Amino acid sequence: MTIDWIFQPLAALNANAREQGLERQGQLTKPPGSLGLLETMAVRLCAMQGVDKPNVDHAQVVVFAGDHGIAAEGVSAFPQVVTGEMVKNFSRGGAAICALARQNNAQFEVVNVGTVVDLPSMNDVLDSTIMPGTSNFAQQPAMTLDQLSQAMTAGMAAADRAAANQVTLFIGGEMGIANTSSATALAAWATGQSVARLVGPGTGLDLQGISHKAQVIESALAKHAPAMISPVEALRHIGGLEIAALVGAYIRLGQLGIAILVDGFITTSAAIVAAKIHPQILDWMFFAHASAEPGHQTMMTSLGAKAMLDLDMRLGEGSGAGVALSILKSACVTHNEMATFAEASVSEKSA
Amino acid sequence: MTIDWIFQPLAALNANAREQGLERQGQLTKPPGSLGLLETMAVRLCAMQGVDKPNVDHAQVVVFAGDHGIAAEGVSAFPQVVTGEMVKNFSRGGAAICALARQNNAQFEVVNVGTVVDLPSMNDVLDSTIMPGTSNFAQQPAMTLDQLSQAMTAGMAAADRAAANQVTLFIGGEMGIANTSSATALAAWATGQSVARLVGPGTGLDLQGISHKAQVIESALAKHAPAMISPVEALRHIGGLEIAALVGAYIRLGQLGIAILVDGFITTSAAIVAAKIHPQILDWMFFAHASAEPGHQTMMTSLGAKAMLDLDMRLGEGSGAGVALSILKSACVTHNEMATFAEASVSEKSA
Repeated sequence: MTIDWIFQPLAALNANAREQGLERQGQLTKPPGSLGLLETMAVRLCAMQGVDKPNVDHAQVVVFAGDHGIAAEGVSAFPQVVTGEMVKNFSRGGAAICALARQNNAQFEVVNVGTVVDLPSMNDVLDSTIMPGTSNFAQQPAMTLDQLSQAMTAGMAAADRAAANQVTLFIGGEMGIANTSSATALAAWATGQSVARLVGPGTGLDLQGISHKAQVIESALAKHAPAMISPVEALRHIGGLEIAALVGAYIRLGQLGIAILVDGFITTSAAIVAAKIHPQILDWMFFAHASAEPGHQTMMTSLGAKAMLDLDMRLGEGSGAGVALSILKSACVTHNEMATFAEASVSEKSA
Repeated sequence: MTIDWIFQPLAALNANAREQGLERQGQLTKPPGSLGLLETMAVRLCAMQGVDKPNVDHAQVVVFAGDHGIAAEGVSAFPQVVTGEMVKNFSRGGAAICALARQNNAQFEVVNVGTVVDLPSMNDVLDSTIMPGTSNFAQQPAMTLDQLSQAMTAGMAAADRAAANQVTLFIGGEMGIANTSSATALAAWATGQSVARLVGPGTGLDLQGISHKAQVIESALAKHAPAMISPVEALRHIGGLEIAALVGAYIRLGQLGIAILVDGFITTSAAIVAAKIHPQILDWMFFAHASAEPGHQTMMTSLGAKAMLDLDMRLGEGSGAGVALSILKSACVTHNEMATFAEASVSEKSA
């Protein structure tokens, strides 16, 4: 198995569709610009989808689940068994992202890239287990190159399924106890900022727990620094299976030309790695929300990205994107359904 | 006709339902607090609706339309005839708020409290014309007490219809060329801030236009200051028919105990007048978005209110609330549909 496919070029935006979208926005019955960022979103979707009336009615949510060896260092407020338990909860439709996917009529699936517990076959869960959680990156690289490649390929496959299903928007989610440690390490590597500035409570550590988590991550980063000579090597040493799958999915979606809605802290760490490989991936991305996890804003600033929502959320699973999906729908319905000044016989601006 | 009804007390929130909502949030399969403001919104809705599983599935949008005599002073970028033209556009479903109401399966109606042009009978438009636009408040009070009372009663009637239809959330919108002048004047009166600090482009004035608008408003405020001895008198002197209807609707909704989603700049000027009469009205209000109109933030600060969205919108009509309605739905579906730790057999926090 090879990762060469990740270096293939991304698709280009459709400049004509973008122009037509802009022109239509100027004709709709409203003061120019008065729908603010909804207008920007609608026009970007035109360019991504190559149409004059875009839609996000065929959205796909894929939650990648995987465990983290670093959990052994006591960096999470929840026990590691919760990753597998939550996969069952996803399958039964009981998690936040399930309710949000239903709200928006989005397709929903879970891809298990490696939980520590063996899981039975379940509805809406694809078993793509690579290993029972990553190795503990405090002590050794999280993955071998082959394991990394398998994880990225699981993400690619999810993107390919989305394309086959003519999905108009892709949301990646994640579940993995201790994965804020991996994401924080990737954020530090990618932005050059200190772990102390980036680290946060994750699912609910207290101050002492956060301090310990920071030490574990700092020490691991120091250990692997000489080997992390590329985004791929950084991802292999300090990433997670589900994060690698997200990087693979994002890159493949960019190659296929499918719009991406990035969720929060963990998914942005995947986006920043994908952007180190393909800076143009940002053309294909919307960013859903500003996570309450402290390191998120630093990554967003580094990417030059602006979040659609700031609701103090920090759940993961793709839940922030599940909420923001409605905003993209609002951008589409206003763009597509509003009458033009001519159609409605409404007078235009006097000045 | 009398306005005595506006001084009747508001309904009280249901403290038991609030407690039960909080308790449920603590049992759902997520780290405590990780859904951020969605949790706060869901619990507030529990308290407003007196239920353990709230909903906004029966939302009602009412757009109040009225013209403004102050338009004669050249304070708007659009001609006054647009108010009536837009009422026709609302009736045909071609405006932004129509598309957003459809997106969220909200009921939609327009109440015409007084356009300058005579309008024919139209679908979804209730004719409650009081006068063909307010008097020019640069020269005289915008309304007589009887006209103000009629406008507030039109709002009350909309709230009563919503109650009869068992509406679970009410969105007031507005349409009225030049109504940012009236709203800015009310904001200055209510907050004590200078017009220069509050005034903005409305539908699209240039800098010279904004400067002229500020002078018109300042001069009118100086003229009416001695007479504006109460919120009712301020509303009568410098308000608008549609703004008075919104104040009446908000107060009646508070008396009936129906949740309110306030839109943006104009509607917040109505909310601030309502709050001067009944400070507890804020218990019944969500604030949808931070308007791009400069004076909005000053009013929000004065109210101690926080907007759910900041999308640089400045269209009015209720459009910001039409977008934010989806966020309240997300708050409800996560609160109502997520499994508890016990139901899902998911382990809780270790610490």
